[in-house]
Amino acid sequence: MTAPLKTIEADVSAIMPEIGHRARAVARALAMASGAQKDHALAAMAQALRARKETILAANADDIADAKASGATSAFLDRLALDEKRVAAMADGLDIIHDLPDPVGRVTESWTRPNGLNIQRVRVPLGVIGIVYESRPNVTADAGALCLKSGNAAILRGGSESHNSNRAIHAALQEGLREARLPQAAIQLIPVRDRAAVGLMLAGLDGTIDVIVPRGGKDLVARVQNEARVPVFAHLEGICHVYVDRAARLDMAKAVVLNSKMRRTGICGAAETLLVDTACPRTHLAPLVAMLLDAGCEVRGDLLTRTADPRVKTASEQDWSAEYLDAIIAVKTVEGVDGAIAHIERYGSHHTDAIVTENLAAAERFLSEVDSAIVLHNASTQFADGGEFGFGAEIGIATGRFHARGPIGVEQLTSFKYRVRGTGQTRP
Amino acid sequence: MTAPLKTIEADVSAIMPEIGHRARAVARALAMASGAQKDHALAAMAQALRARKETILAANADDIADAKASGATSAFLDRLALDEKRVAAMADGLDIIHDLPDPVGRVTESWTRPNGLNIQRVRVPLGVIGIVYESRPNVTADAGALCLKSGNAAILRGGSESHNSNRAIHAALQEGLREARLPQAAIQLIPVRDRAAVGLMLAGLDGTIDVIVPRGGKDLVARVQNEARVPVFAHLEGICHVYVDRAARLDMAKAVVLNSKMRRTGICGAAETLLVDTACPRTHLAPLVAMLLDAGCEVRGDLLTRTADPRVKTASEQDWSAEYLDAIIAVKTVEGVDGAIAHIERYGSHHTDAIVTENLAAAERFLSEVDSAIVLHNASTQFADGGEFGFGAEIGIATGRFHARGPIGVEQLTSFKYRVRGTGQTRP
Repeated sequence: MTAPLKTIEADVSAIMPEIGHRARAVARALAMASGAQKDHALAAMAQALRARKETILAANADDIADAKASGATSAFLDRLALDEKRVAAMADGLDIIHDLPDPVGRVTESWTRPNGLNIQRVRVPLGVIGIVYESRPNVTADAGALCLKSGNAAILRGGSESHNSNRAIHAALQEGLREARLPQAAIQLIPVRDRAAVGLMLAGLDGTIDVIVPRGGKDLVARVQNEARVPVFAHLEGICHVYVDRAARLDMAKAVVLNSKMRRTGICGAAETLLVDTACPRTHLAPLVAMLLDAGCEVRGDLLTRTADPRVKTASEQDWSAEYLDAIIAVKTVEGVDGAIAHIERYGSHHTDAIVTENLAAAERFLSEVDSAIVLHNASTQFADGGEFGFGAEIGIATGRFHARGPIGVEQLTSFKYRVRGTGQTRP
Repeated sequence: MTAPLKTIEADVSAIMPEIGHRARAVARALAMASGAQKDHALAAMAQALRARKETILAANADDIADAKASGATSAFLDRLALDEKRVAAMADGLDIIHDLPDPVGRVTESWTRPNGLNIQRVRVPLGVIGIVYESRPNVTADAGALCLKSGNAAILRGGSESHNSNRAIHAALQEGLREARLPQAAIQLIPVRDRAAVGLMLAGLDGTIDVIVPRGGKDLVARVQNEARVPVFAHLEGICHVYVDRAARLDMAKAVVLNSKMRRTGICGAAETLLVDTACPRTHLAPLVAMLLDAGCEVRGDLLTRTADPRVKTASEQDWSAEYLDAIIAVKTVEGVDGAIAHIERYGSHHTDAIVTENLAAAERFLSEVDSAIVLHNASTQFADGGEFGFGAEIGIATGRFHARGPIGVEQLTSFKYRVRGTGQTRP
């Protein structure tokens, strides 16, 4: 449907600064746009996605054909492929973002000083957000909508293999912006496949990009974190732990461990390591390991774990820091909650970690001492998700300690300023 | 009193990584330290500063003698010099920080999801904070105490001309840490004068420094912003504006303008540009300009301003982006609140800007459209200060949009994490 663009180096160096300046130029108008106007655009975008379903699927078929011809793996093709259900889910996602309250202009704190000055802390957009993602076409709609809702201009650079799909989806977003009389440059898609575009974005596009959000695998995130000269909201990996304490109820531990590992193995909130209190090898360790093995999960364990079940393979040092994203789990026995905290401090990735116990003192120690974005007591690590937090939607999970941490929803895509109202106060 | 240390390159490359690792090693213990323990240390530090007054003043006398011998300016010597009053003020500053509530562990939000999961957002320290400052010895006490209160390890690198003073003050801080049984490495002072130490800090000291806070003039801040490979909390300059609208009460406008410009001319919240509505040259512009001139302030104005008073000098394009930090002001006439907003957008530094008007609609437009960390209505720009905001104390003002913005007090020196409490919830 859509002719592939030529990927000439000269194009990139001419086009990219222009894209940056256009985004910067509309950022102020977007910051001032009303919630109603943004929601009008989001509703029109969802409608356009549904109306343009055939065009989007045809463009996606082109991408799939190209990817197959160049020998893409089936996992890659699965991420790239769209069908009616996936297009509908994309449109539904925009409806969810539409229904969120407008984060911009919200007064988050307000106080009055003894001299009568009233100070308000009020949310404002960040400015221009660059999103660099792999060949998952749904991110185009998702990221564009989240940036718009939070009053930010978006510059999208999707995987080149999904270029036709992204263009078709982007055209629907543009239709929504037009309907709401918002500037087209509010959501821009890099129109060339050239990989040099990513380098220019990571350098900040002449100071026009305020923050970069990478969406994709570890290689992409590592490149972005290493090369970016602007702030990055990201997590490199999710080495999530479940610690089962001696005081855990076995039925609850089983449910939480099975769900944390096996509900979906490929997401960043999936558990990768099970830690079990050395005090309960028979009552907890053995039945948990048997349950995992019976569920089709490969178990790699330390000596005590291997003693519990002959089917357990030997874990090597690398297994304690492995993010399998697959039906494999590393299992280690630790000396109580202290041992669990020490192990997570050494091998964890500050993403999401859970404790299962009926001992509240142990739970509180775990919750306060484990230094991760999300720490849970008696609940599955798979709740590490903006939707599950009630944020409606998220653009990713951040493990850094600055600005955004945990799920990055529309509020995390804002900054703030102080509004001070006086009656002529001067400072003595 | 204290022998100057040798400044050998080899020293720096050996000492610096050790300092970084020591800070990182104690950061976790500091994050877990109770408010009472930190306050015990702060009280003991204040006491030690008072008790060691003579030693501190003698060390400062050495620095002053060295600086005089090397031909330092009187402004430089004034910043460097300590006397009994300044040492007392330093100790009093620690008492103020002591009296602040502990920001660490504070639950800032809490909600329960439909599935019963309770989610808390709770403050945690950032980790290790590097402070790079010029020869103002009081920053040693101030910055060290703010980092401790917020549960962070501090690495201090003060101007080499204040090295003896800093060491004497640092010894008092160490005494306070010892008394409270907190690790000595909680507040470290770089023990060498070598300027290469700053470069190593800006590179993040092998990943051990989480954030850099520069305290000093524009040259220092510019170097830090350009070279730092870790986040920086800072403002490069404070080009603060006061806009006097046609609907301003003249008496209030006079008070706010005079205070914004002349209360202290050398601070970052001092006004540098006065914008006056073109609609009121006689009722507002002329009396405001006369008042400033009579108060000993040099006025550089546009044509209309020069017409208002013959003593006004001609402003050049450079004056609109000048941070004088002196008794000089640039004055420009603008077309109402729109003209003021456009001028500030073009020439401002996103620090602090004020409007004086009785027209609430104009005030609200200014407050929402001027994109600065602090925007004020009918109040002096000199309120741009953590103490005036009720933060108790601040380590600086940030004009960036990420994480900290405006005054950086103990709360801004923290991050947060999510604590999730369940009863066995798994994700469907």
